[in-house]
Amino acid sequence: MTPLAVSLGDPAGVGPEIVAKAWNRRTEKALPPFFAVGDPRAVARVWTGPVIEIADPSEAKAAFATRLPILPVRGAGTIQPGQPDLAGAQVALDSLEQAMALVLAGRAGALVTAPVSKAQLYEIGFRYPGQTEFVTDRCGLHTVDTVMMLAGPGLRVVPMTTHVPLSAVPTLLTPELIMASARVTAHGLCRDFGIAAPRLVLAGLNPHAGESGAIGREEIEVMEPAIALLRAEGIDITGPHAADTLFHPRARERYDAALCGYHDQALVPIKTLFFDDGVNTTLGLPVVRTSPDHGTAFGIAGQDRAVPGAMIAAIAMAGAAATRRAAARA
Amino acid sequence: MTPLAVSLGDPAGVGPEIVAKAWNRRTEKALPPFFAVGDPRAVARVWTGPVIEIADPSEAKAAFATRLPILPVRGAGTIQPGQPDLAGAQVALDSLEQAMALVLAGRAGALVTAPVSKAQLYEIGFRYPGQTEFVTDRCGLHTVDTVMMLAGPGLRVVPMTTHVPLSAVPTLLTPELIMASARVTAHGLCRDFGIAAPRLVLAGLNPHAGESGAIGREEIEVMEPAIALLRAEGIDITGPHAADTLFHPRARERYDAALCGYHDQALVPIKTLFFDDGVNTTLGLPVVRTSPDHGTAFGIAGQDRAVPGAMIAAIAMAGAAATRRAAARA
Repeated sequence: MTPLAVSLGDPAGVGPEIVAKAWNRRTEKALPPFFAVGDPRAVARVWTGPVIEIADPSEAKAAFATRLPILPVRGAGTIQPGQPDLAGAQVALDSLEQAMALVLAGRAGALVTAPVSKAQLYEIGFRYPGQTEFVTDRCGLHTVDTVMMLAGPGLRVVPMTTHVPLSAVPTLLTPELIMASARVTAHGLCRDFGIAAPRLVLAGLNPHAGESGAIGREEIEVMEPAIALLRAEGIDITGPHAADTLFHPRARERYDAALCGYHDQALVPIKTLFFDDGVNTTLGLPVVRTSPDHGTAFGIAGQDRAVPGAMIAAIAMAGAAATRRAAARA
Repeated sequence: MTPLAVSLGDPAGVGPEIVAKAWNRRTEKALPPFFAVGDPRAVARVWTGPVIEIADPSEAKAAFATRLPILPVRGAGTIQPGQPDLAGAQVALDSLEQAMALVLAGRAGALVTAPVSKAQLYEIGFRYPGQTEFVTDRCGLHTVDTVMMLAGPGLRVVPMTTHVPLSAVPTLLTPELIMASARVTAHGLCRDFGIAAPRLVLAGLNPHAGESGAIGREEIEVMEPAIALLRAEGIDITGPHAADTLFHPRARERYDAALCGYHDQALVPIKTLFFDDGVNTTLGLPVVRTSPDHGTAFGIAGQDRAVPGAMIAAIAMAGAAATRRAAARA
């Protein structure tokens, strides 16, 4: 398969370390071939393993077996793990831009993004809330066209609203948003995860999913009509279900993804259960994009303490999805 | 110690079965002596083990070693597991009332309540949202004086608001509510759990605890002032913390209880992690009261499928708390 492009993220964060550690375990984890996009100095600063700088993605596949291929994006200034600066933010952004362009051009099989420092990016003029919105925009799409899905072993959740105040959620949660989210999720699970008939569940907004209107009416007025229309389209979605009993092991067996009304309803269960190996993927894009579901972790960068589990899972998920898409096109 | 009173709850629910199963494991689990309060026919319907009807709580202690003591509260009608009716609701209420009276009179060491059917209770004129509010009222207190705490192995959470629409939460979450909840929780952990200096955390209302006001201002305007005042009182409380990263294993080690803004913020983590053995306890009462954190489970009643883990944990917790209070009085 075409090697994946893995942007190294902020050079002072854990990105370079977890990408190198993922490469180290490529055989054990049966990872697809990939190449890093970023500043080779950031890897050298935290890792002593074999590296090869490549001039073109076409060189990555042969090199991957014995060395970590890096397509260099050189930054200004020095790199100090744990000490982010604006030069580092610039190289993170340039790496993301270049990796994204290669994926859009079909020269890389998928995009995997290591964590960036949003605060630093904003200072150099980055105008997106995060990498997800950047990637969405580069694909010519809008946020409403795509869905953020977080996945751990045995649980996938979709926060339908994300970084908004909780008080704004009841108003933002419209039938249109629920329907768009469900459609993109169902199609994404089919196309990228090979689940032919995905089973979706919708979490209620209110305690006990409103108890037939006794504790809030959004379930009756917004959610049930949306579910009825989606089921009429042939999408297998049930609910609204009480959120508190939706995420224990037996409950999780009954669905492929849970649509959640707000950030913490989705992220509390996934991070409670899978803090170290959650993957963030953007569904609804013309390309495959995944990311480890954690931040730059500046506090432990450069100390050989970063756990590569989420990065390994993100690369594996991207590889599997890219393979499915390639097979579908063949 | 003075035996505990365990009300059997709805006779058609799993209450009688899990109380009998808990008695069966009394030695293995080192349970304190207890007696059931309810209709002996409900136990006979689902269990063939040894039972003794007692006329007075004083008989319970000697009988407990070899037979399940039951203080009979006889209902009208027949009992059919899985088929609740109004006669059953009446006997559930009468059992609760009698058990509560014995605890208030000091004739039982603590109150443990098996699940009731609220829908049926409302039909016979029960005017409380649930057993917690009934118990609170019988103690001459109001809901604001007490705290519901849910506990599993290694996690305790307090929902500061409970069965209200999510849209009402931002308004209900006042500094006064947070301060009252924190004080009752800190005192309860000290008095009933033997934690001399309880470490409390407060979960943020908004994603990422508001990100310094970028995603909602309740953290700055409501939560931080309440925390400052509580700390000035000597209560060890920190926050507001991002809720999504507050409940994974390493995070849970850092506190004794998490105060949560709303029902699902507290109940999603506890039920995701400890669906079968969560305990609900009411802090701030003159007596000890616990309950298994699940419902009547009519769907599996009478099939010998009910898991007694939560009831066993509720009895053990009540026994430990009652022992601490008795020692403090001695």
